[in-house]
Amino acid sequence: MNVDGHHYRTIWLSDDHATVQVIDQRRLPHEFSTRQLRTVNDAVEAISNMTVRGAPLIGATAAFGVALGLRADPSDQGLQGAVTALINSRPTAVNLAWAARTVAAAVKPLPFADRFASALKEAQLICEDDVASCLRIGEHGADVLESLPVTGRPVQILTHCNAGWLAAVDWGTALAPVYRAHQRGMAVHVWVDETRPRNQGASLTAWELGQQGIPHTVIADNAGGHLMQQGKVDVCLVGADRVAANGDVCNKIGTYLKALAAFDNNVPFYAALPHSTIDWEMPTGAMIRIEERDADEVHTIVGLDTRGAMSRVRVTPVGSAAANYAFDVTPSRLVTGLITERGVCAASRAGLAALYPTKTRLHNP
Amino acid sequence: MNVDGHHYRTIWLSDDHATVQVIDQRRLPHEFSTRQLRTVNDAVEAISNMTVRGAPLIGATAAFGVALGLRADPSDQGLQGAVTALINSRPTAVNLAWAARTVAAAVKPLPFADRFASALKEAQLICEDDVASCLRIGEHGADVLESLPVTGRPVQILTHCNAGWLAAVDWGTALAPVYRAHQRGMAVHVWVDETRPRNQGASLTAWELGQQGIPHTVIADNAGGHLMQQGKVDVCLVGADRVAANGDVCNKIGTYLKALAAFDNNVPFYAALPHSTIDWEMPTGAMIRIEERDADEVHTIVGLDTRGAMSRVRVTPVGSAAANYAFDVTPSRLVTGLITERGVCAASRAGLAALYPTKTRLHNP
Repeated sequence: MNVDGHHYRTIWLSDDHATVQVIDQRRLPHEFSTRQLRTVNDAVEAISNMTVRGAPLIGATAAFGVALGLRADPSDQGLQGAVTALINSRPTAVNLAWAARTVAAAVKPLPFADRFASALKEAQLICEDDVASCLRIGEHGADVLESLPVTGRPVQILTHCNAGWLAAVDWGTALAPVYRAHQRGMAVHVWVDETRPRNQGASLTAWELGQQGIPHTVIADNAGGHLMQQGKVDVCLVGADRVAANGDVCNKIGTYLKALAAFDNNVPFYAALPHSTIDWEMPTGAMIRIEERDADEVHTIVGLDTRGAMSRVRVTPVGSAAANYAFDVTPSRLVTGLITERGVCAASRAGLAALYPTKTRLHNP
Repeated sequence: MNVDGHHYRTIWLSDDHATVQVIDQRRLPHEFSTRQLRTVNDAVEAISNMTVRGAPLIGATAAFGVALGLRADPSDQGLQGAVTALINSRPTAVNLAWAARTVAAAVKPLPFADRFASALKEAQLICEDDVASCLRIGEHGADVLESLPVTGRPVQILTHCNAGWLAAVDWGTALAPVYRAHQRGMAVHVWVDETRPRNQGASLTAWELGQQGIPHTVIADNAGGHLMQQGKVDVCLVGADRVAANGDVCNKIGTYLKALAAFDNNVPFYAALPHSTIDWEMPTGAMIRIEERDADEVHTIVGLDTRGAMSRVRVTPVGSAAANYAFDVTPSRLVTGLITERGVCAASRAGLAALYPTKTRLHNP
C-alpha cells in the first residue's frame, strides 16, 4: 500500500537476493524506517521483538527466515534448527508454524546446494499467496460492507488492533475490505481501537488509514461498547491470529470484549483471515496457547515527546505488578462470519468445511 | 487512608478555616502534592481539570465550592452563580449537582452574614456523610466478598477506573469492601484495569492499593474478558457516577464491556455507591448525558520519563482524529447488585425502593 505516495510491501527480498528487508513497525507512526534481516536469528528477533507483527506477516517472515538459515547452514540440522527457532519465536499465531513448515517441506527433498534458492522462491510464493488471498478477502469483505443496511452516512466500521497491510504482506485482512470498498467509491469511516498495551491501533492502523486517505477516529479500547449502544457502529471487522477448526477466533487481547458488545447490540461481527490462519488441528479456541508478554509493555508507553523524540514513560507506580496477556479467544457463537479468500462462511466446523472441503494448506489456485 | 503511613482525606478545610486543601490527583502516582482552593473558580477548575475526580469527591468539592463562593459574595446572586458554575463544571456525575444544591438549600434562608460559615459546616457534614457511607459500603461489600465460594486462593477482584478513597473523601466506594475485607483478615488480590485514556486505574487505584499493602496487578483494559474466561476473576467491583432510578449504572467508559464479560462468564458484577449517586429523577441510564472530553487525552499519555520527570508523549499519528467519551451505561440486567451504605440490593426500581423507601437525599442517620 501507499507510504507517502510510494507503494510498499511490509517485507521483500533485498536487491542482493541474499537478505530480506522489512518495515520496522516499532517506530511507526513517528518514523518510517526499514531493517535488513541477514540471518535466521535476525528473523527470530524481528518476530519476537515485534519489528514485524501480524499473523500473515510473521508467517512470511518465518518463511524467509528458514531461507536465511539455509544460506548459513543448508544441512538437515540447519533446516531443523531454523524451523524450531522460528516456531518458538512467538506462540499464538498459527501462520508462523505453517509457513516455516511449508518451506521446510519443500526444500527437504533437495540437495543442500539447491535449498537456499528454493527456500527463497518458496517464501516469495507464500508472500504472493498472501497478497492474493488478502485482495480476495478485500473483495468478499467489500461485498459484505455493501450489503449492510443503508444509513445515509458513511459505513461505520470498528476495528481492533492492526489487521491492515502492515499485518500482512500487502492489503491486510480486516482492512482489505475497507480499502477495496473505498476504491469502489463507498463512503467509509473507521473507529480505531487504540489497542493497549502496544497501541497497534493508535500507531499502525491510524497511520496506514491516514496514508490511504481513509477517514478514521482513534478511540480508547474502553469506548467501543458505548459507541455500539449509541448506534454509531455498523459492523466490526477484526483479523485473527489463529482460527480453530470450530470457528473460535483467537485475536489480539480485547477482541472478545468487542464481540460481546457487538452481539449485545446486534452489530455484525466479522473476522477476516487467509487460509493460513486456520488451524485444522485445533478443535476449539480454548486450547490455543495465549502468549504472555513482558509486563513492561503495560507499565510503560512509548510515544513522541514534546521535543520530537521517541520516549518511553511509565504510567504505573513503582512496586505495582502488571500482567500482559497478548490474545484472547472469541467463541464462534459471537462471530457473524469469517471472511476468507474463498468467501464468507459461518464461524463453525460446517462453515469452514464448506469453503475448504480438503482442509487445504496449499497455495491458493 | 494511608499515604506513606500518614492518614489523609482527599479534601479538608485548611487551618485558616477559609480555604480548602485537596490532593492533586493529576500528579499521582509519580508525585504526591496538595493544592489550595481559595475561590469558587478554583473549585470549578479543580473539578473540570480533574485535580479532583470521582463522583463522591467532586460532590464534596462542589459543596466546599459553594462555601468559597459565598465567602466572596454571600448574596442570592452570588449563591446562584456559584451553584451554576459548579454544576456546569462536569456533566455526568449526579453527586455534583446534589451536593451544590444541598448546601444552597441549607444556606438560602439565612442572612448573608451567616451563609459562608453555614455553608462550610454543611460541606463538612457532606464529607462526614460520605465517609460514613463509604465505611458502611465497605462493611456490606466485605460481607459480599466473604459470601463468595471458597476457592483456596485469595479472592480475585477486578475493578475498573478508580473508585477508591481518592474518588471519595475517604475509604472509597468499590475499594472500601476490599479494604475492610483485608482488615478483617481475608486474602484478596485486585486486578486493576489501566482505564485509558486517563489511566486512573494504573495511576490511582494501583497507587492507593500499594499504599495500603493490598496485592494487585495492573492489566490493560483489554484483558479482563480473557481473565474471566480463564476463571481468574471471582467478582467485579466498580463504582458509579450516576445510578438511574431503574438501576442502570453510569460509570467510567469501559465498565459496560466488563459487565458483559462478567455476565457471559457467570462472574458476579457489583457497583458500589452512596445514596448521593442515585438519581431518582433519571428514569433510565439511556438518558444520562455522557461527557465528551478533549481528544488530546486519547492522542497523548502522561507518565514518568527516563529522567524522572513527568512527560507527555503522543501515541497517534499527526492528522488522525480521536474521540473521547468519558462514561458508558451498564444496563441493570448485567448488574448482580448495588452495594450501598444501607446494604445490597438488586439493580432495579424495586431493589432501590426497598432500601430507600422515601428516596432520601438527606444525610444518613
